[in-house]
Amino acid sequence: MTREIVLAARPEGEPRESDFELRELEDAAPSDGEVLVRNVFVSVDPYMRGRMTGVRTYVAGYDVGDPIDGGAVGRVVESRAEQFAPGDWVVSQLGWREQGVVAANRLRKVDTTLGPPSTALGMLGMPAFTAWIGLLEIGRVEAGETIYVSGAAGAVGSAAAQIAKLKGLHVIGSAGTPEKVEWLRSLGVDAFDYRQSRPRDALADGIDVYFDNVGGEQLEAALSALRTHGRVIACGAISRYNDARAEPGPRNLFLMVTKRLRLQGFIIFDHNARFPEFLAEVAPWVREGKLQYRETIVDGIENVPSAFAGLFHGENVGKILVRVGPDD
Amino acid sequence: MTREIVLAARPEGEPRESDFELRELEDAAPSDGEVLVRNVFVSVDPYMRGRMTGVRTYVAGYDVGDPIDGGAVGRVVESRAEQFAPGDWVVSQLGWREQGVVAANRLRKVDTTLGPPSTALGMLGMPAFTAWIGLLEIGRVEAGETIYVSGAAGAVGSAAAQIAKLKGLHVIGSAGTPEKVEWLRSLGVDAFDYRQSRPRDALADGIDVYFDNVGGEQLEAALSALRTHGRVIACGAISRYNDARAEPGPRNLFLMVTKRLRLQGFIIFDHNARFPEFLAEVAPWVREGKLQYRETIVDGIENVPSAFAGLFHGENVGKILVRVGPDD
Repeated sequence: MTREIVLAARPEGEPRESDFELRELEDAAPSDGEVLVRNVFVSVDPYMRGRMTGVRTYVAGYDVGDPIDGGAVGRVVESRAEQFAPGDWVVSQLGWREQGVVAANRLRKVDTTLGPPSTALGMLGMPAFTAWIGLLEIGRVEAGETIYVSGAAGAVGSAAAQIAKLKGLHVIGSAGTPEKVEWLRSLGVDAFDYRQSRPRDALADGIDVYFDNVGGEQLEAALSALRTHGRVIACGAISRYNDARAEPGPRNLFLMVTKRLRLQGFIIFDHNARFPEFLAEVAPWVREGKLQYRETIVDGIENVPSAFAGLFHGENVGKILVRVGPDD
Repeated sequence: MTREIVLAARPEGEPRESDFELRELEDAAPSDGEVLVRNVFVSVDPYMRGRMTGVRTYVAGYDVGDPIDGGAVGRVVESRAEQFAPGDWVVSQLGWREQGVVAANRLRKVDTTLGPPSTALGMLGMPAFTAWIGLLEIGRVEAGETIYVSGAAGAVGSAAAQIAKLKGLHVIGSAGTPEKVEWLRSLGVDAFDYRQSRPRDALADGIDVYFDNVGGEQLEAALSALRTHGRVIACGAISRYNDARAEPGPRNLFLMVTKRLRLQGFIIFDHNARFPEFLAEVAPWVREGKLQYRETIVDGIENVPSAFAGLFHGENVGKILVRVGPDD
């Protein structure tokens, strides 16, 4: 028997533990071309909230009764595909389950010489890849520019802030606790606590690029602070995912014209072809300690829903992971 | 003696005639390198409203007591620069005056074999150049796509709609009177009257690009209608120029992320280097009748303020010009 988390009800507003249910099911066995994977770490990500609403977005939504697909790292238990052998570390979209059968072509092998396997869901995985694509391809940042990263202590934000610094930018970052601000300052980020200071004050000297993980008031403040030809890298809007109804947008969007701004959204899955290039650039930085990461690790599959809910309270520093099985 | 219009007071809300004043002044004479130009047609443009607020934008604001600079076409009266001779048609930024002295390097000679001189302020001038740059460089439109142009019967909009058609796009356009809609339909534009139909209904089949001359509700409707990888060419927001205070932005701006949208503002003056290329492509279309234009011509410099105010009531079809002197 194995266990998984399914969607029990569509969340209204903030997700609650009662929106999810732990279910037991029979073990499955792989067919030809398939692999049985035992998850070790599963990821909880803000974008999953959108998939729970029942509104079609860029990925299929979860229906009530569905298991929650998503990023997970685990080990091969049994392989009927020649590319994989028992014991291999792999990244899958198995999501919030203890184990499952996956087609071999939907798995990516993890090179554990680059970093601990958990980093395949963080600084060497989707969140940091999102930061890298956002900076380079969407924002086209240049050395000497000033960037503002909101949610800068989160999984994507902490990667964006540090990669921007490594690319020669001056980085301003916001976070919601003194502990996070202190960590960011130790990384050379000009950090402020958005619960203590107003973004418009922190950005008073102007910015060239805004890496938006948050939306809402921070976007409005950033639009005011952006210089001519500024860019907004629209990565997500965690302040908005739980809104029951759409809130008004920034009152100063017209600045887009007078300041010749470019606002651009993106979805990382469109850019998967560049993942090897990302890894080639970023893995050495992680190995050399130039890119720091923090992980918040919660134990037990039964605690996935509360870890997910915690995302929306700004509880996590860095990447939040749930360990659902032994990591050896 | 000659006459000019000066700003008498900063408009609050919609501009009124009492915000302007007609002033008489002595004739000036050109020095070396300068040219005395007698205006024939002067332009009234929505962007001028922004320059009257006293807020710094992309061009210097007008101060109270200042003459109103802006696009004008006229004839050389006296030249102390070898590139110009009496009788030449020229475009200047002399604005709302009967005549003035201009440095030769700030004049552009008009080739009157391409079209009547008035078109140098419309279909062969800044408005159509704005449309062309917006479509090609900002929106990067492609044949087969569907574009929505708001304010499609205006000077910029009617150029955008027709150039888009010539580039192989399906064009939806909005305007505010039955007469304008009829004209647009005669041009092959799928036109609707936004005072009769809701944009969201007119755009129900989806669009790839939105050429925004209007802002406000139309932008919100367009964001909803845009397909994945859609673009917004942010050219101006005539619905907003007179707002005393900033109104909230679109409630659905978050769609930028899920639909990977790009919203980009631009100012035509940044692109002046491409003007000859524009003229080379567009002038033959005008000559061959593939690009139609309408002009609303008002007579007398004393009527410039009312013509300007009329812009914000959607009174004009095509380009609105004021004739301030004889055109022969």
